[in-house]
Amino acid sequence: MSEKIDPWSSSDIKDYEHVFKEFGLNKFTDYDISDNYLFRRKIVIAHRDFDKIKEAINNKKLFLQMTGIASSGAFHLGHKLNIELFLAIRELGAKSLYGICDIDAYVSRDDKKIKSMEQAKEIAVDNVSDLLALGLEPHEIYVQSQKEKSYYQLTYEISKKITENMFRAIYGHQDLGKMSAVLLQMADILHIQLPENNNKTPTIVGIGIDQDPHARLTRDVTKRLNYDMELPSFIYYKMQKGITESTKMSSSDKNSAVFLTDNKQEIAKKINKAFTGGKISLEEQKEKGGDPNICKIYDIFSFHHKDDKFVENIYDDCKKGKLLCGECKQKCISFLNKFLEEHQQKKEKLKDVAKKIVYGK
Amino acid sequence: MSEKIDPWSSSDIKDYEHVFKEFGLNKFTDYDISDNYLFRRKIVIAHRDFDKIKEAINNKKLFLQMTGIASSGAFHLGHKLNIELFLAIRELGAKSLYGICDIDAYVSRDDKKIKSMEQAKEIAVDNVSDLLALGLEPHEIYVQSQKEKSYYQLTYEISKKITENMFRAIYGHQDLGKMSAVLLQMADILHIQLPENNNKTPTIVGIGIDQDPHARLTRDVTKRLNYDMELPSFIYYKMQKGITESTKMSSSDKNSAVFLTDNKQEIAKKINKAFTGGKISLEEQKEKGGDPNICKIYDIFSFHHKDDKFVENIYDDCKKGKLLCGECKQKCISFLNKFLEEHQQKKEKLKDVAKKIVYGK
Repeated sequence: MSEKIDPWSSSDIKDYEHVFKEFGLNKFTDYDISDNYLFRRKIVIAHRDFDKIKEAINNKKLFLQMTGIASSGAFHLGHKLNIELFLAIRELGAKSLYGICDIDAYVSRDDKKIKSMEQAKEIAVDNVSDLLALGLEPHEIYVQSQKEKSYYQLTYEISKKITENMFRAIYGHQDLGKMSAVLLQMADILHIQLPENNNKTPTIVGIGIDQDPHARLTRDVTKRLNYDMELPSFIYYKMQKGITESTKMSSSDKNSAVFLTDNKQEIAKKINKAFTGGKISLEEQKEKGGDPNICKIYDIFSFHHKDDKFVENIYDDCKKGKLLCGECKQKCISFLNKFLEEHQQKKEKLKDVAKKIVYGK
Repeated sequence: MSEKIDPWSSSDIKDYEHVFKEFGLNKFTDYDISDNYLFRRKIVIAHRDFDKIKEAINNKKLFLQMTGIASSGAFHLGHKLNIELFLAIRELGAKSLYGICDIDAYVSRDDKKIKSMEQAKEIAVDNVSDLLALGLEPHEIYVQSQKEKSYYQLTYEISKKITENMFRAIYGHQDLGKMSAVLLQMADILHIQLPENNNKTPTIVGIGIDQDPHARLTRDVTKRLNYDMELPSFIYYKMQKGITESTKMSSSDKNSAVFLTDNKQEIAKKINKAFTGGKISLEEQKEKGGDPNICKIYDIFSFHHKDDKFVENIYDDCKKGKLLCGECKQKCISFLNKFLEEHQQKKEKLKDVAKKIVYGK
């Protein structure tokens, strides 16, 4: 495979260059630390303070991992990416905790999206079932509405350390619900370092690169709090784009996303409509090849199919004009159907465990 | 006693007229509902929706009482006034709960005033001891930092129902700590009507008239929440003014306040310096009489001495020039010393119960 068509060459890293410059993120370079496909393929692209974590990994010292999702509905492949990174870091030895942010999801969104805390908790049951089916242990999962007193107290202590100007500079608004969500997110990240939990310990949080404003504010607040805590480290992955043209994968735009709850008909319909890197005519594509770098189908393989050889072949064959979009979409439909069928079967059996995590009984 | 020198004539109600007009408060008129001195003396002056409570009292139906204080230190006589009203309403049959707002106290104040949650909790132990010594039962008291999950969840649900504009219109700022304090205060008032607590039940909250903005916003938010709750009723009392000239009694201005922790030396010093309604010369005062209506010593008697005859005599004798300020101050010092000595003795014995309420163990 030539350098030119290396599918893991981070050729689209230029899309992120401005982020590095503007916000002082560091390019991720320690790819040899993990054999997980997210590292092998350079889907992990940036970090803040990763050295602390590397040191802990290399010296087999305790380090913590925390991440979470506030979802307004079923998880999609973008959420799965976050969970895959969580599993990869757990594999590196992290004591790990995953937060399903039911209160955050409810308070930060319009009533039209989530009309009550009851609905937020129903969504949480579905989300927790996904986590369990993907391999998390029950003790590694919590929902915000079931947290202990000290967690909530921390959310309020955090509020004291953020001025009106700091908040407005980062978020550009002062909507009270969204402000509450920010406080909860910070407590999610920091509460694992409370004296009653793990005390001061290096902590890593894996997030999409669009979430960096939260990371910066969290690190800033950590310094101001009356607790002795390590500044949390962050590791950033490339965003899963939407499957339609120029979209991000988002629960708000149902056509942009492949949900973990989609059935075969929905998958076929969505993938067949997905935006690809194909040429206008079959002839032209056979002659000049397609462009996997802009293709949403290739994105799905690259972000979720764990067989490097398979993904490389897709890339090469597309480039060479040997694999056309119709056939490639069929491969994608088969891949997704196989994964989703197994996943949904596992999930069904884990609903009761999930309910217990969400409702505490 | 002539109408003119009736010390409970609410002659200073004119100070509050603009509040009634501006904010739509109702003058309190149901003074015959209680024989407590705060009602007899018309220290209770205004209400919102008291009819609901009157109906419950008259028909011996369940109604709730909730109030609370976020204090940055020891309680003073102004706080005691709030507690006296709490006891008076409990006497009318209310199922009552008093919140010591430790988180609120910490987050809404500058670090110079309360430097940590630990300090806020130490203050809470002192405050809870006062409540117990004044006659509250342990099950009638809570601190915010010991509340159950549903209370905290409610604070966040409330945040979703307050827009940036609503908040700014009432408070004129968007400081995050103070915003958090508002959310906590509202949850204090409303959580007693959660399904798991008392469900929808008439609720009365006794507050100083300066707290009405909170009351209005709370009633507004109650309508928007996804819970079936009675709009809380409010009953307002006159503010305890500071003992120095033109001050309000405030923990921030130590000389303005008589604290429940003051010793004999402090009491003597403060009362001797207090602002009175005395005339410039003894001769003039003997001839024309003093003015109890502007006198801070008279305020203390009127707001705290429970013997009407004693207080009326002070008023009359002052007006007639028979009782001069020096002698009156000695009476006040004796009164406060007697009360504080007994109170502080009771309190000392209740510290352990108070600690259990604050720390949960």
